[in-house]
Amino acid sequence: MSKERLYLFDTTLRDGAQTTGVDFSLEDKRRLMHVLDELGVDYIEGGYPGANATDSEFFTSRPELKSARFTAFGMTKRAGRSVSNDPGLQAILQSSADSICLVAKSSDYQVRVALGISKEENLECVEQSVRAVVETQREAMIDCEHFFDGYKSNRDYALEVAKTAFQAGARWVVLCDTNGGTLPHEIERIVADVAKHVPGKNLGIHTHNDTENAVANTLMAVRAGCRQIQGTLNGLGERCGNANLTSIIPTLLLKSEFADAFATSVTPEKLRTLTHASRVLDEVLNEAPDRHAPYVGESAFATKAGIHASALIKAPETYEHVPPESVGNERRILVSKQGGRSSLTAALERFGLPSDKEDARVQALLDEIKSREDQGYSYEAAEASFELLARRSLASVPRFFSVDSFRVTVERNRALNGSGTHAQAVVTVSIAGEHDPLVSVGEGNGPVNALDKALRSDLGRYQKHIDHVELVDYKVRILTHTPNGGTDAVTRVLVESHDTETGERWTTVGVSTNIIDASFEALLDSINYKLLKDNARVA
Amino acid sequence: MSKERLYLFDTTLRDGAQTTGVDFSLEDKRRLMHVLDELGVDYIEGGYPGANATDSEFFTSRPELKSARFTAFGMTKRAGRSVSNDPGLQAILQSSADSICLVAKSSDYQVRVALGISKEENLECVEQSVRAVVETQREAMIDCEHFFDGYKSNRDYALEVAKTAFQAGARWVVLCDTNGGTLPHEIERIVADVAKHVPGKNLGIHTHNDTENAVANTLMAVRAGCRQIQGTLNGLGERCGNANLTSIIPTLLLKSEFADAFATSVTPEKLRTLTHASRVLDEVLNEAPDRHAPYVGESAFATKAGIHASALIKAPETYEHVPPESVGNERRILVSKQGGRSSLTAALERFGLPSDKEDARVQALLDEIKSREDQGYSYEAAEASFELLARRSLASVPRFFSVDSFRVTVERNRALNGSGTHAQAVVTVSIAGEHDPLVSVGEGNGPVNALDKALRSDLGRYQKHIDHVELVDYKVRILTHTPNGGTDAVTRVLVESHDTETGERWTTVGVSTNIIDASFEALLDSINYKLLKDNARVA
Repeated sequence: MSKERLYLFDTTLRDGAQTTGVDFSLEDKRRLMHVLDELGVDYIEGGYPGANATDSEFFTSRPELKSARFTAFGMTKRAGRSVSNDPGLQAILQSSADSICLVAKSSDYQVRVALGISKEENLECVEQSVRAVVETQREAMIDCEHFFDGYKSNRDYALEVAKTAFQAGARWVVLCDTNGGTLPHEIERIVADVAKHVPGKNLGIHTHNDTENAVANTLMAVRAGCRQIQGTLNGLGERCGNANLTSIIPTLLLKSEFADAFATSVTPEKLRTLTHASRVLDEVLNEAPDRHAPYVGESAFATKAGIHASALIKAPETYEHVPPESVGNERRILVSKQGGRSSLTAALERFGLPSDKEDARVQALLDEIKSREDQGYSYEAAEASFELLARRSLASVPRFFSVDSFRVTVERNRALNGSGTHAQAVVTVSIAGEHDPLVSVGEGNGPVNALDKALRSDLGRYQKHIDHVELVDYKVRILTHTPNGGTDAVTRVLVESHDTETGERWTTVGVSTNIIDASFEALLDSINYKLLKDNARVA
Repeated sequence: MSKERLYLFDTTLRDGAQTTGVDFSLEDKRRLMHVLDELGVDYIEGGYPGANATDSEFFTSRPELKSARFTAFGMTKRAGRSVSNDPGLQAILQSSADSICLVAKSSDYQVRVALGISKEENLECVEQSVRAVVETQREAMIDCEHFFDGYKSNRDYALEVAKTAFQAGARWVVLCDTNGGTLPHEIERIVADVAKHVPGKNLGIHTHNDTENAVANTLMAVRAGCRQIQGTLNGLGERCGNANLTSIIPTLLLKSEFADAFATSVTPEKLRTLTHASRVLDEVLNEAPDRHAPYVGESAFATKAGIHASALIKAPETYEHVPPESVGNERRILVSKQGGRSSLTAALERFGLPSDKEDARVQALLDEIKSREDQGYSYEAAEASFELLARRSLASVPRFFSVDSFRVTVERNRALNGSGTHAQAVVTVSIAGEHDPLVSVGEGNGPVNALDKALRSDLGRYQKHIDHVELVDYKVRILTHTPNGGTDAVTRVLVESHDTETGERWTTVGVSTNIIDASFEALLDSINYKLLKDNARVA
């Protein structure tokens, strides 16, 4: 059976860069372009050459690509100027791009109010700009801005813009829901109508997530005829984001309604890099990954319900809509009260530890976890602490160092008022096999910061292992309400650590009635986990 | 034109509680129930009475509701037992719920493999359980678990389960996409078929977001006939979450395709509480709000300053798919954190303070709030701190007392190991009109507890006002990631206080790079607010 080809157009580096607070460096762009090329998209829109220094440089030092077409974004020529007299358009035409995507207004209101030109002048700009691209032997595309709103207010004019671009030689005419307010059934109806005037194999779709329908709108457009899909990794983009390619691509490959009808450039093998691609973008943006992201989120294939867990292990395909490994993700059966024994043993297997439930040590570990959960520990989000606990019970974890004592002082008085409150910590640590304890002092903005600084300022021969570790998140939750009041309750601290050299991230937990104790426990777990993973030698 | 009624069923407190890491306390459930009732949903599923202590207690101490129906979740009776001999079902039947929603398997595979009973036995369980609910004069609903997967593998049996529930008297037969893998066009087709066998006015839809289509799937189901919508605030829920009511509700009210055809219990006025409702859930979960959330996100109506800005001010309706104030959100043109100005002036009116934006003092207060928000303060959930700030700017608040100094020490060493870590605080306070400062010592489980005890052990003549005040919640959130790492970032503390004599509750906020400072600020606000409300006399 012959399948129709669908083309994937990534605009993370262009429309994604419009996101509030996002400012990609040249290095960021190169790194993401590499990831996108590995994933196998057809087009990578790199930016707007001429619009800013980073984008111009990016197009000057053209990166090597395996298969994707390097695409430049720009605007159609201005009215009242010739193509050769429009410096903006010339910068794009002279760039190193394989394909050029120009944005054009397709709503008569926008043409009149925002551009202040006649409808005919706008059509002429579209036509001449497309012709200019085609003349340079490059592939031409037109992003029809405000297309769906334009269609609703003046159908004929919106269609006229699309047809003009197509007839001038545009390979792709892309229908944009610029304000993001169009709903799936409307998209389906309107695209089906447009496809009567411009062939579907030349139509693209570009949606935004303002009603949380960007993915559905894209899928509906494909069903109605569009054959190019524009979107971004992780749905990055202005306001509520662009259509999320990280969700769309696996649906196209793994859901039979699409997989049986369409072929894409992303192979099943490349699809397994999807979770990685998503995490790299988070890292570039220095943002915590969305645990609940479809397909690639840490919780996307997680379950904590006990009854489900045992059935899930028996027949995962009945509880998972797709296999997690197909997108490079993994099943997580959460270790929690509700998860019971099967989820515990599944985690132990993953660590390569004994997992036989009849084993007395496994039973003892299970009891230990239950008792810790009753105290307020939670291992759902702190897998590093769980692994340490399990290895200590079932195998062995070296005692790299021990803490003899610590003291933290926080002080404020009128004399200090100008410079705020003062926090100081003193920590005494004994390193395994070394005779003299190490005494370190740390000063910081707060007690935990001071303690962290003191603890990590001198770990003797282990220091090199933690030099590149930084704390990237610190969460505190008060768990129970005791009769003595809130500040007397049990405190759970979650610490997320990041090794800036290896890119590894791990989360640890500490629980105590004392927030300092809880924080210290999580900090110690973090260091011990790192030393364990590094196979640090004990004297 | 007469509109058909759509019913909104919120399951934040039940299915939302399945989310990894979510563990609602009784207080959390009460607070969210109030917010949901104010928003105006038809049903609030509070939990599963009998399944755990919190849910049982929640249903025992039945909260007062304005308009929502308080709904209990549970399972249909077990095969081989009578209704009266099934303690799980009996606990639900004897609860204080107005409506009861029971989950039943509707996939023949699940019946055979997960339940290990015959298809006929399962139908009998459904029928007898529904009848038992109806006999108690309560509204009965059936959640048909795995309905869409079941329909695809054995259409007749899935329909049989739905019909059996309906014929036994279920007010609602809810079609669940339990694994979340069904796509919008499939939902539309299958619901249209089901509606030939069970009337659409008795059908509900329950979707999950595993392909990022939960919202679209819900809208498609409504178009195909379903008249009850199940979902959660902010799309909370297991794996990738449930259908997001925070996105669905505004679409139903603001998009003509739905608004012209359907009526809901959420009025346009109540819709303006939506952003607030969404933020309260984040506060309860101690999570940062998703800036990019459709409709309610901080960036949902944000535009990077530039070409669009002036056009946006002239004619916002052409750049915004709905008016931001319709959901209690607001337009953001410049990159600034100025959040909630209209809600702030509304709050001033509520306090009986000047609220005219032309008033220079009001303007100064707004500037002060903006500057504090830039530092990390948030007044969404800390209205007591907001009122103190506003009264200090626009009226006057007596200076009851001042803190001259404090010192907190937290210490652990081997000698103390048995009894844990030791925390001690010394606070020096000057009471207005009294000559000698009061020096108090407090010891506690942690530094904040020790500080709280010291501060409240002797406030001179004000002591009687705070004798019955206790802290019932204490939340810490780290706000920004500085280059020095997580423990160096800005800390926001929220403290909820409770007067056990009057029943009053109030929340205050403190922000600092130092968690002790932030906590202390919130504690001081709490005491000052109480003294202000009690009209405590200043010497």
